[in-house]
Amino acid sequence: MSPGVAPGAPTVDTALPAPPPTDLSAIAAAVESRGAAGFVAVGDRFDDDLRYLSRFGGPDRAYAITVTPEHAVLTAPTLFAEQAAREFLGGDDDLVREVRTDHQSEPAGVRAALALDELTDGADAADRTVLTPASIPHDAALYLRGAGYEPESTTAVADARERKSEAELACLRRVQTVTSRGMARAEAVLAAAEPDGDTLRWEGEPLTTERVRRAVDAEMARHGVRSAGNTVIGAGQTAADLHYTGVDDIASGETVLLDISPRGPHGYYGDLTRTFVVESEGGWERRAYVAVQDAHEMALDRVEAGVTAGTVHEEAAAELAAHGFRVDSSEVGFVHGVGHGVGVSLHESPSLTSDDPLEAGHVVTIEPGVYDPETGGVRIEDLVAVTEAGYERLASYPIRFTPQQAP
Amino acid sequence: MSPGVAPGAPTVDTALPAPPPTDLSAIAAAVESRGAAGFVAVGDRFDDDLRYLSRFGGPDRAYAITVTPEHAVLTAPTLFAEQAAREFLGGDDDLVREVRTDHQSEPAGVRAALALDELTDGADAADRTVLTPASIPHDAALYLRGAGYEPESTTAVADARERKSEAELACLRRVQTVTSRGMARAEAVLAAAEPDGDTLRWEGEPLTTERVRRAVDAEMARHGVRSAGNTVIGAGQTAADLHYTGVDDIASGETVLLDISPRGPHGYYGDLTRTFVVESEGGWERRAYVAVQDAHEMALDRVEAGVTAGTVHEEAAAELAAHGFRVDSSEVGFVHGVGHGVGVSLHESPSLTSDDPLEAGHVVTIEPGVYDPETGGVRIEDLVAVTEAGYERLASYPIRFTPQQAP
Repeated sequence: MSPGVAPGAPTVDTALPAPPPTDLSAIAAAVESRGAAGFVAVGDRFDDDLRYLSRFGGPDRAYAITVTPEHAVLTAPTLFAEQAAREFLGGDDDLVREVRTDHQSEPAGVRAALALDELTDGADAADRTVLTPASIPHDAALYLRGAGYEPESTTAVADARERKSEAELACLRRVQTVTSRGMARAEAVLAAAEPDGDTLRWEGEPLTTERVRRAVDAEMARHGVRSAGNTVIGAGQTAADLHYTGVDDIASGETVLLDISPRGPHGYYGDLTRTFVVESEGGWERRAYVAVQDAHEMALDRVEAGVTAGTVHEEAAAELAAHGFRVDSSEVGFVHGVGHGVGVSLHESPSLTSDDPLEAGHVVTIEPGVYDPETGGVRIEDLVAVTEAGYERLASYPIRFTPQQAP
Repeated sequence: MSPGVAPGAPTVDTALPAPPPTDLSAIAAAVESRGAAGFVAVGDRFDDDLRYLSRFGGPDRAYAITVTPEHAVLTAPTLFAEQAAREFLGGDDDLVREVRTDHQSEPAGVRAALALDELTDGADAADRTVLTPASIPHDAALYLRGAGYEPESTTAVADARERKSEAELACLRRVQTVTSRGMARAEAVLAAAEPDGDTLRWEGEPLTTERVRRAVDAEMARHGVRSAGNTVIGAGQTAADLHYTGVDDIASGETVLLDISPRGPHGYYGDLTRTFVVESEGGWERRAYVAVQDAHEMALDRVEAGVTAGTVHEEAAAELAAHGFRVDSSEVGFVHGVGHGVGVSLHESPSLTSDDPLEAGHVVTIEPGVYDPETGGVRIEDLVAVTEAGYERLASYPIRFTPQQAP
C-alpha cells in the first residue's frame, strides 16, 4: 500500500440492491406509432441495447426481449431464470413484464417470434412489421422473417438511451466517483516514484504503464467496479496513441496520460482522463497542458441544454488553435472529437460534433487533447450531465500538471 | 492486507508483449473449398469471433475483417490505427495482412464489401457468395447484399476456435494461474472470518459475498487480469443460484460457492470453482461435497482425446446419482451440464454433453455440482486441456471443504 492511499479507506457504495428500473414506454410508443406487431431485440450479454432494455446481465449466448404496447417478455435460458427474474422484473412503466423459459431448444429469434405470436393473438395482425435495432443478428432477422414477420430497423432504443433518468444518473455518479479513486491511486504512485537518471522507479522497480494500470484497476475493484479493459495509460510517445494498453517505461519529463473508463455493477461506465508530468522541464509538455486546460474550461462553459452539440467541439478547437496547435490533422494536434455520450456503452449518443441540440439528461465527456507522435500527448477529460442551466460534473478530480499525494 | 496473502507477493506475468498470432488458414481454406469470394465478419470489440480472428481489441462500434485465400484486411477506425497495427499484423499463416482506414464515413459492412471488391478484382468473380458467421449484424448482411454479394453462414470460425494452439494455451494457463490467486484470496478471507452467532465477521464488519468478491477482483487486478463481471459468489440459498453476483450475508455452516471466470489481457478466460463451508456441522453440505468431489474425479478420469464428450457428463451424473442426488431436475440436484469449452469466450465449443469426440487441444471445464434452492449449492470446477493421453490441468488449486490460510 503506497503513501496517499490509506489502507482502511472506506469503499464507495456501488453495490446497489437492484439495477435501475427499465422504462420501455418509448419502445412501446414506437411500436404503436408505427402500427407494428412489436419490437424485438436479440443479442448476448455484451449487447448494450439489450442490457439497457432488460437490465439482465444475461448469458454469453443469444437471448431476446419482445415488446408490444402492453407487454414485455424476456426469453431467458432456464439456467438463468433466477437472475432474469431478479434483474428484469422491476419496470418503471405500465407494461406487464414476464420472463419465459419455454422452447429452450429453439434459437432466440424463434423464441422471440413465438412470444410475439402469443402476445398479438386475437389482435389485428394485418401489419406483420417488427421493429428491431439495425444490428440485430442476421440469423435472428431470418428467423423472424421465417415466422412471417418483416423486420424493420428503428432508432428508438438509441434515442431512449440518450437521456438518462435519475436512477441512471445515480449509477453514473457512483461509477465516476470510483473512477476518481482509481485516478487518485495512479497520481499517488506517480508522486511517489523516484527519478533515477531519466527513468522512474517505484517500490524498488522501474515504473511502467502496466504497473500503474494494475494499481488503478485493483483500487477500483476494491469498490466493486471493474476496469473493463479500458485503463489506457501511455507515457511519452505512447501517450499519443489514443488507446494504449501496453507496457511502456515511464520516464521523468514526459507526459503520462491516464484515461480510465471502468464499468459499474449495473453496466454504466465512468470516464476520466488526466495527464501528469513528473519532474517537468517545461517545453512542449507544459505548453500543451496549458492549451488543453484552457480548451477544457472553454468547452465546459459552452455546455447547456439547447446548445448545438457541435459548438462545444468548435469552442475547444478554436482555443487549441489560438494556442498554436493544429486542429486539421489525424495525427498531430487535436485529432479527435471533444466528447461523446456515456451510459451502458462507453461511447454512445450524443456526439459533440453533431448538429443536434444538447438536452438535459445527456451525459457526455468533455475531453480536448493534443498529441505529437514524436513527443507525447495531453488530454483532460471530465464526465458531465447536461442540465437546463449548464452541467453537473458527475465526480470531481483536481486538474494539475505535477502529480501530488492525495490530501 | 489479510493473513495468507503476503503484501509483496510477486505478480503473475500476464502482460505478454503481443497477442497470440492469428491463424486464418482454416478460414482461407473454407473460402477456397466453397469457391466463395471471401469471408467477412463484422462486429464490435465484444464480438469474440472478431477478437479471435483479428486479436484486435477494437472500438465499441462496428469494424470488419475480410479474408480471401491470400489476404486478410482489417478495416479499422482511423483513431484506432496504431492499435490495429500493433495487434492485427502478427499472423501465423501465409496470408498477407493489411489494416485499412479508408472510407471512414461508410458503415463497416460497406467497407468490408469495398475491400472484397479490391481483393477479388480480376479474379473469376462468378461466385459472389460471402461466408459469414450466422450472427453477423443484419445491417452488415444487407450492405453485403447491396454490394452484390450473397451472405452464407459458415461454422468455420467456431470450428477453428475449438482447438487451441500452444500460444493460446499459454494465455489460458496464465489467466487460470491468476484465477487461482483470486481463489486463494477468497479462501484466506473465509479462513480469517470469525463466527459471531450464526453470522461471520471479517475485519470488524459482517462478511458478505460482495466483500469477498471485491477482495478476489482486487487480487486478480493486481496481476493484470480483470473480473469481467463473472465473479459469482453465493452463500447458502444464493449458492443454488448459478449466477449470483449480488450481496448476501455469509453465515457459518452454509455452503459458500465461488465461481471465478476472469478475462486476461488478450481476451482468454479462466474458470475455477470451489465451495467452502466455515464451521460445518455436516449434514447436506458435507454429503453434497463428498458426492461432487467424487463426481469431479470420475469425470476428469474420463477426459482423453477420442472419448465421446457426452460420456464425461454421463460419468459425473452416474456418480452423483449413486450418491443419492437427483440428475433429472432443472432445480434440484445436478441441474446443468458437466462442462463447456473456454477460450476467447467463457462458453464455447465443445460442450461436454455432445456426441462428438474430444480432441487434443480442446480446453474444457469439468464442473459437476448439486443444488438445493432451500439449502445451498456445491460445485467443484477445474479447467483442463485435453491431450492424447488424458488432460492437463491449466492451473491447480487444492480441493477442500474447510477454508484454510494459504501455505
